[in-house]
Amino acid sequence: MRFNTELEHIATYQAGKPIEEVVRNFGLKESDIIKLASNENPFSSSPRVIEALQANAKKAHLYPDDSMLALKEALAQRFGVGVENLIIGSGSDQVIEMCVRAKENAHDKSDKAKSEAHKSQENTQKPAVLMSGVTFAMYEIYAKIAGFRILRTQSNSHNLAEFEAKLESNPEIIFLCVPNNPLGECLDAKQVYEFLECAKSKSPQSLVLIDGAYQEFASFKDSAKAISPQKITQHFPNAIYLGTFSKAYGLGGMRVGYGIASAEIIATLHKVRPPFNITTLSLIAAIEALKDDDFIKSCIKENFNQMKRYEDFAVSKNIEYIPSFTNFITFVLPKEIDSSEVCERLLREGIIIRNLASYKMNACRITIGLDSQNTRVLQCLDRVLSSVQKA
Amino acid sequence: MRFNTELEHIATYQAGKPIEEVVRNFGLKESDIIKLASNENPFSSSPRVIEALQANAKKAHLYPDDSMLALKEALAQRFGVGVENLIIGSGSDQVIEMCVRAKENAHDKSDKAKSEAHKSQENTQKPAVLMSGVTFAMYEIYAKIAGFRILRTQSNSHNLAEFEAKLESNPEIIFLCVPNNPLGECLDAKQVYEFLECAKSKSPQSLVLIDGAYQEFASFKDSAKAISPQKITQHFPNAIYLGTFSKAYGLGGMRVGYGIASAEIIATLHKVRPPFNITTLSLIAAIEALKDDDFIKSCIKENFNQMKRYEDFAVSKNIEYIPSFTNFITFVLPKEIDSSEVCERLLREGIIIRNLASYKMNACRITIGLDSQNTRVLQCLDRVLSSVQKA
Repeated sequence: MRFNTELEHIATYQAGKPIEEVVRNFGLKESDIIKLASNENPFSSSPRVIEALQANAKKAHLYPDDSMLALKEALAQRFGVGVENLIIGSGSDQVIEMCVRAKENAHDKSDKAKSEAHKSQENTQKPAVLMSGVTFAMYEIYAKIAGFRILRTQSNSHNLAEFEAKLESNPEIIFLCVPNNPLGECLDAKQVYEFLECAKSKSPQSLVLIDGAYQEFASFKDSAKAISPQKITQHFPNAIYLGTFSKAYGLGGMRVGYGIASAEIIATLHKVRPPFNITTLSLIAAIEALKDDDFIKSCIKENFNQMKRYEDFAVSKNIEYIPSFTNFITFVLPKEIDSSEVCERLLREGIIIRNLASYKMNACRITIGLDSQNTRVLQCLDRVLSSVQKA
Repeated sequence: MRFNTELEHIATYQAGKPIEEVVRNFGLKESDIIKLASNENPFSSSPRVIEALQANAKKAHLYPDDSMLALKEALAQRFGVGVENLIIGSGSDQVIEMCVRAKENAHDKSDKAKSEAHKSQENTQKPAVLMSGVTFAMYEIYAKIAGFRILRTQSNSHNLAEFEAKLESNPEIIFLCVPNNPLGECLDAKQVYEFLECAKSKSPQSLVLIDGAYQEFASFKDSAKAISPQKITQHFPNAIYLGTFSKAYGLGGMRVGYGIASAEIIATLHKVRPPFNITTLSLIAAIEALKDDDFIKSCIKENFNQMKRYEDFAVSKNIEYIPSFTNFITFVLPKEIDSSEVCERLLREGIIIRNLASYKMNACRITIGLDSQNTRVLQCLDRVLSSVQKA
């Protein structure tokens, strides 16, 4: 059977190892495993959400309200935008995928005349997307499936001067991950707005996707990082802001994210949105989660308290870390310590963290856990690092 | 902003009106509304599922096991296939979408030489998909987004001789909806297998997608309708079987479906599957639902008992109906009765059924409901039909 030729070069996304898999592979007890690999909220979700899920479990047979109006209204009020500026996705992942689909073949019509004249250059003229050297893996995967050429900046973390220099390639989509996953660094909002202005004039057909999956953490730590989705809808018809309930809101398992942009962009994305793309219980959970700001704030505050322990640990061990505006921290290891070995050793003790070897970095990313989890992880890490260094 | 040019001609899928929308638009009480428009299981889901959802609500913050191994193992045992023959989707909808993505651009490589020689015929050479005259709307929507040409048989319901005649167009995907939604008719399994043989020899590159969303109903009513996914994996490398938890299993709101095919097809589909594509609670619900066969059987039995009432009603009113192998029945109305008017009148009384005007049919599709719901619907329908006919 013949398939999409683009798929020949697609590597399947490697998700953080689930607890179930570690139980299966290492014969450990589920209760002994600490998973700090997927940036879930270790404090669970709001008690209000859990109650609402229990009360509505009997609605599992009913499709959700496909207009998702109640959730859109709550988000519209939260961000000072209109309902027509909102689209809901199965995680912000799905909104990324919708953007890629919406931009696929966008060049066909306008570039037809041009491409007729340059048949021989057809391959090099393949439309492109632009992203940071190291950033969220799904940007590349979705873009490759759709046949886009991948352009990356030289720097691993976001360097807007390098992004600007690449605008001449007229990328169909420019991905800005603010703050950046899996590194943790974060552009200032002001820098992002200036870049949007620049992109608008130099490459007006580029859609700039601002992935704000960890914005709640960044804006808590430093208000200069806070991107305003309202400002984007009002001033930047070339941009879309993405948010998620998977991180600060503690709903990773429920798969709810959203996009905020001009009504024109949102209407187009709705054409590629599959119907009933989130579950009935996810819709209820997200609406309820938005009502419990105190829970979110306390989670974020404790996140940064606990992160300090990892920073102190890194300093004491003379290990480089990237100052993080998220709920994870990335340790960049020295040459003599192999990140794959560190992760493997921790795994055998039931601790799951993320090895960044797949990003071609000798580094590992650790989600900030509960106090007791972090204590065990740091103790174990201490032991493993000493033993690996000696070897 | 320029977008995918294929989207200019895409009509957004019209889902069955949710109860919430009717409450909003008609000022009715939620408890007074009967929704028989989306073929949900009126008997809810298994009590075991509801208990499991309540007990696991506190896991909402955790991503699901992305391998979905436990669910795949349960399905593999159910159908006598291997885990490598299974893929899980957010509803079988998403498996349809994955098949379309996997077949997108499949023609690029093999047809390159050919198409170079026929540049002028490029438009007519656009790769095609083939489906019945009237069938599940998402086949066309997903295929159009991917730029496929839509071929349909002349007949509304499935006519395999017409399908066979169109094999010379070498469609990349052939959609067989068995039984067919929104009409309710059902091919025999034997006919399907014969067609698969025929397609294998006449159009070996075609992927035949057998959508078995309502198979549990069809095979209960008539064992000659029962498609064997095992047989498909063993004998038909050109086919994929799709199943869902949304209908008989009463999990429409949880969005879980699956595809069963050769390991080769499944491995390719996994490349286009988004990670974490179903929720943590959906995974738990589906696994639990598979353990309660008694619940499913009793639902299906009562479905056909209640369907008899609609058939008797149609006969008594001299209205044509399509004998149904599903949990819905389709009334084909005479010219003098406009289906849009009938549906609108029912809606004002708080009864939501599906108007098939969007399928260019003067017909309406009614999900078989609970005994009390069906009583009210038939009474109301009786009144509306008399009044519409008089007018």
